[in-house]
Amino acid sequence: MHQTLEVSLFQELEKQPLIDPHSHINPHAAASKNLADLLGYHYYTELAHSAGLAKDQIEGPEIGPKEKVGRLVEKLTDLDNTIQVNWLLEMCRDFFGFTAERLTTDNWEGLYDAAEQKMSQPDWEQQVLQQSKLEKVFLTNDFDDPLEGFDTGVYVPCLRTDDLVFHFTRKEVRNRLAKASGIEAADVTSFRSALGKLFEHFASKGAKACAISLPPSFSPHKVDLGAATSVIRRAAAGQTLTLAEHEMLSSWVFWTLAEFCDEFKLPFDLMIGVNRRVYESGVYQGQDLYDKRVSLIQYKAVLNAFPQVTFPISVLTHMSNQELVSYAWIFPNVVTNGHWWYSNIPAYIHADTLSRLEAVPRNKQIGYYSDMYKLEFGLPKFRMYRRVLARVLAQEFVQDRGWTEEQALTLGRQLLRGNIETIFKI
Amino acid sequence: MHQTLEVSLFQELEKQPLIDPHSHINPHAAASKNLADLLGYHYYTELAHSAGLAKDQIEGPEIGPKEKVGRLVEKLTDLDNTIQVNWLLEMCRDFFGFTAERLTTDNWEGLYDAAEQKMSQPDWEQQVLQQSKLEKVFLTNDFDDPLEGFDTGVYVPCLRTDDLVFHFTRKEVRNRLAKASGIEAADVTSFRSALGKLFEHFASKGAKACAISLPPSFSPHKVDLGAATSVIRRAAAGQTLTLAEHEMLSSWVFWTLAEFCDEFKLPFDLMIGVNRRVYESGVYQGQDLYDKRVSLIQYKAVLNAFPQVTFPISVLTHMSNQELVSYAWIFPNVVTNGHWWYSNIPAYIHADTLSRLEAVPRNKQIGYYSDMYKLEFGLPKFRMYRRVLARVLAQEFVQDRGWTEEQALTLGRQLLRGNIETIFKI
Amino acid sequence: MHQTLEVSLFQELEKQPLIDPHSHINPHAAASKNLADLLGYHYYTELAHSAGLAKDQIEGPEIGPKEKVGRLVEKLTDLDNTIQVNWLLEMCRDFFGFTAERLTTDNWEGLYDAAEQKMSQPDWEQQVLQQSKLEKVFLTNDFDDPLEGFDTGVYVPCLRTDDLVFHFTRKEVRNRLAKASGIEAADVTSFRSALGKLFEHFASKGAKACAISLPPSFSPHKVDLGAATSVIRRAAAGQTLTLAEHEMLSSWVFWTLAEFCDEFKLPFDLMIGVNRRVYESGVYQGQDLYDKRVSLIQYKAVLNAFPQVTFPISVLTHMSNQELVSYAWIFPNVVTNGHWWYSNIPAYIHADTLSRLEAVPRNKQIGYYSDMYKLEFGLPKFRMYRRVLARVLAQEFVQDRGWTEEQALTLGRQLLRGNIETIFKI
Repeated sequence: MHQTLEVSLFQELEKQPLIDPHSHINPHAAASKNLADLLGYHYYTELAHSAGLAKDQIEGPEIGPKEKVGRLVEKLTDLDNTIQVNWLLEMCRDFFGFTAERLTTDNWEGLYDAAEQKMSQPDWEQQVLQQSKLEKVFLTNDFDDPLEGFDTGVYVPCLRTDDLVFHFTRKEVRNRLAKASGIEAADVTSFRSALGKLFEHFASKGAKACAISLPPSFSPHKVDLGAATSVIRRAAAGQTLTLAEHEMLSSWVFWTLAEFCDEFKLPFDLMIGVNRRVYESGVYQGQDLYDKRVSLIQYKAVLNAFPQVTFPISVLTHMSNQELVSYAWIFPNVVTNGHWWYSNIPAYIHADTLSRLEAVPRNKQIGYYSDMYKLEFGLPKFRMYRRVLARVLAQEFVQDRGWTEEQALTLGRQLLRGNIETIFKI
Repeated sequence: MHQTLEVSLFQELEKQPLIDPHSHINPHAAASKNLADLLGYHYYTELAHSAGLAKDQIEGPEIGPKEKVGRLVEKLTDLDNTIQVNWLLEMCRDFFGFTAERLTTDNWEGLYDAAEQKMSQPDWEQQVLQQSKLEKVFLTNDFDDPLEGFDTGVYVPCLRTDDLVFHFTRKEVRNRLAKASGIEAADVTSFRSALGKLFEHFASKGAKACAISLPPSFSPHKVDLGAATSVIRRAAAGQTLTLAEHEMLSSWVFWTLAEFCDEFKLPFDLMIGVNRRVYESGVYQGQDLYDKRVSLIQYKAVLNAFPQVTFPISVLTHMSNQELVSYAWIFPNVVTNGHWWYSNIPAYIHADTLSRLEAVPRNKQIGYYSDMYKLEFGLPKFRMYRRVLARVLAQEFVQDRGWTEEQALTLGRQLLRGNIETIFKI
Repeated sequence: MHQTLEVSLFQELEKQPLIDPHSHINPHAAASKNLADLLGYHYYTELAHSAGLAKDQIEGPEIGPKEKVGRLVEKLTDLDNTIQVNWLLEMCRDFFGFTAERLTTDNWEGLYDAAEQKMSQPDWEQQVLQQSKLEKVFLTNDFDDPLEGFDTGVYVPCLRTDDLVFHFTRKEVRNRLAKASGIEAADVTSFRSALGKLFEHFASKGAKACAISLPPSFSPHKVDLGAATSVIRRAAAGQTLTLAEHEMLSSWVFWTLAEFCDEFKLPFDLMIGVNRRVYESGVYQGQDLYDKRVSLIQYKAVLNAFPQVTFPISVLTHMSNQELVSYAWIFPNVVTNGHWWYSNIPAYIHADTLSRLEAVPRNKQIGYYSDMYKLEFGLPKFRMYRRVLARVLAQEFVQDRGWTEEQALTLGRQLLRGNIETIFKI
């Protein structure tokens, strides 16, 4: 019984027009130009490298797109079990009419050419948006992004703040901040003013969120004014900071950003748990991992200090999901946000979706975001989520709790779309 | 096939008379007087607050019970996905004949009045006990509870020791201890004697366990006599202790309680992992959370030192469940105890029950306790557990391992009831 | 539908001849002589002890094998829910034609005698290998094992290095090393030479891996030459080391072993997470537990430093599985290795197998190893794994992703056998 039901719920959810609340789309080149843009996604390069392909075989300016695809395709037989290769096949089938069971050394060239032809159509980007039912896609913009030359009604700006919080000691970041804000951040007052300028700029362009990814060791606290004064001056002067000073500086910037989120009424997306450059010889974007020993208790101070700021929280691991469930259940300003990166596979999405639906108010759950770099990935990624969501709705709600199919669908639609509108005020 | 089997096992388990081995029932007012007593349970107030209801809308002496229910009901639409609201509906259906699909602003008043009428019947408490098949309910009594005026054959006293272990530095706690024991705890000897008096009193009233909830940072050790002498004297004199002295004092009290559990042959319920007052502006009892970075290795010393004391252990998170399974598999004195608080939702109960049944001796598992404050909650909470238990028994034991239905039921009954009799010597 | 499919996949996987890539078999007495050898496995003694059987009832030279089995059988009624007792029943059924539902005080003696008779057949070992479809079984040899008197084509030597890394400060270990290598390890150079001799010896005997089990606190780093010189001299001279010096010594030995693995092209099996002797009064091999607060980030340095060494990694807990998945997904030299000890129960095998199959390249997964001490355990342990594997293949790959049964089987066979051949170069 519930297998038929699952399919029927899935098909209904497929019809839902979407707002994607987190991506890394470049709005000036949102869609792909060829298969190399798809297979160049770090999931494929890092998995192929992990399975034995040398980094220099796929990275380097001298490798043409078709050559690169050919080399990656050879390695796909070792990866065809992964859900990421499943995304690839779904894209090839849905966008390019690919019909074979696998992408192989025998059939990829024909696909490459057919895909390139289709992707060169002038309205390809619009086709992808329509076929994927994507109405709006949130971006993750550098703080000095001019936010010009694209339709902010479709590509919604978001202020990414990693560099400000963790890399202000780099001269290049200070220069970018000075240029973007028109203010030299040299002390508490001028640094705060510079940050304020960024918020004004982003707000004027319709930004809907501030976002940051955070290492497992970070635990922000309110920094004493005197201490902040001293450490900002030293950093602005290019002096070397101690580890404690670095943390103080990061805390101060983070706290100040939260203050501006409060003032500008912007949700602050926290993406908690990533260690950068753990595998230093890895391919581009395939070097980051984590330490699972992280707790949301590290955010106790900030969650209490900013009751009016909504914090959509993403956790990098399934082991952090129960904390996210519990914190969202207790703190009015904590919202569960999607299924991030290493947890973005059906096994973990299923377990995490189920626990969230059993214990977090339904208006506080953002079901999914794509995290994509190229527009074509929205379709298979959201579809993976919809499959899992349909299964959970069928089993837990219709079968076990006796909900009607329509009640279950209403819940599903709220997770997929409705809550994004209310939480990000769209 | 196994769905029919699940239902049939569930229905059999529903017939089992119960002993509830942990609750917060007030034996002088065990049952509820109106729907406000049910909706006043922290699960509803904290979830409603989390979903957006201001604390002052539901807390405050000026808010009447009917007004409070009306305000909470308005918020239920945001919570109807939670298993906690499912408990509420099951109570309304089973106890008050409620037939609607949801509790809404349109239908709650009729229910309120009908419920109040039913709850005002003089034998309401007995009706609830009978309908829920509850024969005995363990309490969690303050150490200075006189334990008088109720039937200790039905409401079984248990000595709660949180205040003694963690709050002896508060003058009010020292006063209560002096009054309850007749002994001024001023040094190692007198403090020990005072604790002994409490055990004598509780034992004389038929107490069946000593219980405590513990923060994730706690790791008790045997304290050197000289150090204990000094720190108890300082605490008793009202002097301020360092963090290290606080830990020493807590360790000493905890260790001494374990010694008395040994002497009085009382199991010592350890409920491990809660941080109090994490969300300080939360509603009553809706402020506690946790740090998942806790390990049962912190209890290595105490588990080795007291081989004759049974420790029924509850862990706050699903992430601690495998440790609990492994420690109960190795240590003769460790028993798995129920599904506590943030882990008391079907998703985690299912996973945790399955792993316990695969690897912990069947005579060392306490299936479930209600943790309830009002008697009506026993029915839906135990039912939630019975549903999960029936599913695990049907799939893992009957279907996968070829057990007969009767063998599976015997196992289920042992978890629900039999082990509670043997472990707590009832 | 998928239940029939599961059975059909399981039956096909049962036909696959096996290489067992990790065991504790003694090749001079690989098979059991009587039921006491089976019931003497620590899983039964520790579970029976945990369920209430006194240690002195089952340990001690004066207890005969039949007496011991009789005492353990009495306790089996408390353990019959565990998967370990399920292994026992499967062995009794498959090897000895046992037909009863349970092993009881009424039927065990007949079984004991029948089993002893069968086990005394001169080709019993060969029968077990054949019936279990075991072609090769990896050993875990002490570093001073002469590796003589057995067929290394069937029983494949592996160099176990726990003593070298963690117990060089024990005079007995230094003496064993001196005797085995012919070199007195007194400084960096001679210690390294002694280790080199061990590798030469093991390589000459066809060793296929180096292996070590590691406590949760260990985090190896490259040790400065001067520091290593000093600490090795002090240790070799029998002087007492500080905790920091102990860690430095362990790091240096571990790092040097990795260098030899590189030189000798041997995979280095890391078995991460065990604390030894946590329950000090436990039965033989039933004293170890763990602290779940461990992370693979602790191995960042070594994984980066030895890109040419393959590290098949086993984690002790399900809570570490996602890290293992993620690290194997990113690091080319990390391979997922089986389901170890406290995670070797169907509930965790299922969850861990599913996540690995969704995100780790298929050529980097070692499905299972037995970890057995006696040969008869290969059959029920691998069977348990095959059942879970068949279920995952049926549900996730055939049902959900539309793979053919043959494609799913090919994947299953690669995990069961193919990858072991390629990773260990057999």
